[in-house]
Amino acid sequence: AIGVSTLNITSLERPLGSLSATFPETCLRNSSISIVTSVWKDVDDVLEKPKDIIQFTAKKLSVGEVSQLVVSPLCGAVSLFVGTTRNNFEGKKVISLEYEAYLPMAENEIRKICNDIRQKWPVRHIAVFHRLGLVPVSEASTVIAVSSAHRAASLEAVSYAIDSLKAKVPIWKKEIYEESTSSWKRNKECFWAADD
Amino acid sequence: AIGVSTLNITSLERPLGSLSATFPETCLRNSSISIVTSVWKDVDDVLEKPKDIIQFTAKKLSVGEVSQLVVSPLCGAVSLFVGTTRNNFEGKKVISLEYEAYLPMAENEIRKICNDIRQKWPVRHIAVFHRLGLVPVSEASTVIAVSSAHRAASLEAVSYAIDSLKAKVPIWKKEIYEESTSSWKRNKECFWAADD
Repeated sequence: AIGVSTLNITSLERPLGSLSATFPETCLRNSSISIVTSVWKDVDDVLEKPKDIIQFTAKKLSVGEVSQLVVSPLCGAVSLFVGTTRNNFEGKKVISLEYEAYLPMAENEIRKICNDIRQKWPVRHIAVFHRLGLVPVSEASTVIAVSSAHRAASLEAVSYAIDSLKAKVPIWKKEIYEESTSSWKRNKECFWAADD
Repeated sequence: AIGVSTLNITSLERPLGSLSATFPETCLRNSSISIVTSVWKDVDDVLEKPKDIIQFTAKKLSVGEVSQLVVSPLCGAVSLFVGTTRNNFEGKKVISLEYEAYLPMAENEIRKICNDIRQKWPVRHIAVFHRLGLVPVSEASTVIAVSSAHRAASLEAVSYAIDSLKAKVPIWKKEIYEESTSSWKRNKECFWAADD
C-alpha cells in the first residue's frame, strides 16, 4: 500500500462525505488508516468521472471559469479555444456579432462531437460554452476547454472541437456593421452551406 | 471612407489620448470627423502592436487574466494551453511540484520561441507565464495564450510553444511524493536530457 506519512485526514472529509452519500452502506469515517488510503483512489475515480459540460447562455463568458470546470487532479493539461468578435469582416468595420442557435439540435450536435472526441483521444472533461445574442468586439462567443493526462490529447481535441462546431452545429451569426447594415449568416464551413 | 453613422466619439478618448502621447505633435482632439475616422484605423495599429509577454512568478496563475492579455479587436481567436500538476507520476502519488528556472536563459529561450512562432504563423499577441516554487495538485504551472485573426494560426502556435518550452527552456521540476520523497528532474523531452 502507498505510504501515508503526509496524508492529511481533514482534506478527505469532503470526498469521503460524498462517497458515503453515494454508498450509504459504507461507514468510511470509522475506517482504519489503511482502508482510508485505498478508498482515496476510488474517491478520485468517483469524483473525476468524465463530464461533458455544454452550455448556451446570453451572459458574458469567463475563460477562467470554463477552464476551472475541466481541471482534474488526474490531468496535467487543459487546452482551450476562445472565439472572439473581430472588429472587421471582409473589409467592413464590425461593431458586434449577434448569435442565434437552434437549441435542441445544437446541443445534440455538440454532444455528438464530445462522443467523437472520446473515441479519438483519452480526454477527461470537455466543456463547450456558447454565448447567444449580442457579442461586442473582443468578447468571447465560444469557449471550449478539454483536460487530459498528457497534453497532445487535449490540444488535438480542442482543435477538432472548434472545427466540428463550425461545420456541424446550427448556430447563425449576424454581423452588425458600423454602417448600420447587418446580415444573418450560416457559418461558411457549415456542411449545408454548399446549397447557397 | 468608412461611414460614421454609429461612431461613438467618447469611445475614442482613450486611444486618441494614447496616440497623442505617442505623437505629441498631432492635436487629434480637434480633428474633424473624417480625420478622426481615418485616425481610428491607425489607433488600432498602434494599440495592437504585437506583444510578447513573458513572466515567471511565484504567484498563482490566472487563466482568465493571461487570456485577457492577448485579446485583440483584430483577432477572432485565442488559443491556450494550461499545464497543471497531476496527482500521480509513474505510479507514485504526487502532492505538489516545485519549479526552478535559470531565469536569464529561460526568458531568452522563450523569447526565441516567440520569434520562431512569428516566423511560422500570423499571430498577434503571445503570453507565456510560468509559475516557480511549489505548485499544488490541480494548479497551473504554465499558461500559454496566443491570439490570431483566424483560429488555425493560434491553435498551431500554442501547440508548438508548449512542445518547444518543454524541449528547450531550462526549467527543472521536483516531484514531491506522498511518501515524503522527492527528486529534481529536467524535463525528459529537454534536448540535453539525452546525456543522462
